[in-house]
Amino acid sequence: MYRTPTHIGIIPDGNRRWATYNGLNKEDGYEHGLMPGLRLLRAAEERGVKELTYYGFTVDNCKRPKAQVNAFSDACCKAVELIVGEGVDVFVVGNTESECFPQCLVPYTTRGREQNGKMRVNLLINYGWEWDMKNGWCSRDIPRIDMVIRWGGMCRLSGFLPLQTVYSDFYIVEDLWPDFKEEHLDAALEWYSRQDVTLGG
Amino acid sequence: MYRTPTHIGIIPDGNRRWATYNGLNKEDGYEHGLMPGLRLLRAAEERGVKELTYYGFTVDNCKRPKAQVNAFSDACCKAVELIVGEGVDVFVVGNTESECFPQCLVPYTTRGREQNGKMRVNLLINYGWEWDMKNGWCSRDIPRIDMVIRWGGMCRLSGFLPLQTVYSDFYIVEDLWPDFKEEHLDAALEWYSRQDVTLGG
Repeated sequence: MYRTPTHIGIIPDGNRRWATYNGLNKEDGYEHGLMPGLRLLRAAEERGVKELTYYGFTVDNCKRPKAQVNAFSDACCKAVELIVGEGVDVFVVGNTESECFPQCLVPYTTRGREQNGKMRVNLLINYGWEWDMKNGWCSRDIPRIDMVIRWGGMCRLSGFLPLQTVYSDFYIVEDLWPDFKEEHLDAALEWYSRQDVTLGG
Repeated sequence: MYRTPTHIGIIPDGNRRWATYNGLNKEDGYEHGLMPGLRLLRAAEERGVKELTYYGFTVDNCKRPKAQVNAFSDACCKAVELIVGEGVDVFVVGNTESECFPQCLVPYTTRGREQNGKMRVNLLINYGWEWDMKNGWCSRDIPRIDMVIRWGGMCRLSGFLPLQTVYSDFYIVEDLWPDFKEEHLDAALEWYSRQDVTLGG
């Protein structure tokens, strides 16, 4: 039987490398990560996944050059707009008190308590694990993550929700995020269904 | 230039599978993981690694059948004895207040403050990430981990020091832990030296 993860974490890494390989400025990569995010969402929903959490950007990412910060901030606003258009439940977690937090996303920072059967999509925006910890783990409304899929070849969490990922299986895609293909998700799901889930037991 | 990790986390998984494949009872696998642990320590020290943290066993592991619990508990006592014999600094972190904690390891649960230039070797014994968190992260004397190497093919942390591993690179060895070879460490170090360390930036 095919065991499907309930909740997948998405680390969409490699936008800047993709831009460089394609002769663009680094900051032009993020825009090319938007449609992949939407296609992944639709594919995951079709395959029975109930919840997705995207790693948008972190407090530390905001120390990058201004052109990049503006570009990923804009891309996150557009991403949320696209995702809302899918009729899913959207929840944004991050430090809203710093100027790096895009104002357009403030309306999404409270999670509805109702379980309305819709897919749930969380986005970490201006997130930081130390910020999360200092605030008594304010990401606690995001539940345990079964599998983390990371694009761009690195095998690391980079501060992505330390408590929700303690038992997650990590699947790494070598391709860069803007080169997302549904086949990546299918391969990850197939791999996941072969993992022995013990939750530390 | 060859970039060496300062601090490596070791998840020595696969002892029970190894025992089964070799026609033994599951609990007989742990004993076969002892010498690999010592050989790894020596090899890491030779290669300039300054600190190792071994995942011994967890609070949750203690729910396993008694024969297994006794076997891994004994193996951990013997492991510490062997490691102490190497003249390194030994530090044990775990819940000393439950009966599952081996009494022989109590003397190692306080860390010396002196930096005496010796290699530092930490072991998590009767550790639990929730226990760690509830106690104000009492593992805080163990510093950030640069790379985690896990044997036995799984790509997950299984509750291993959530805060120290936020920026760690994870290297997975397919072979089971009792089949440890120095080549595994060399491959991991070679791989690590090719990773781009950003610490979330």
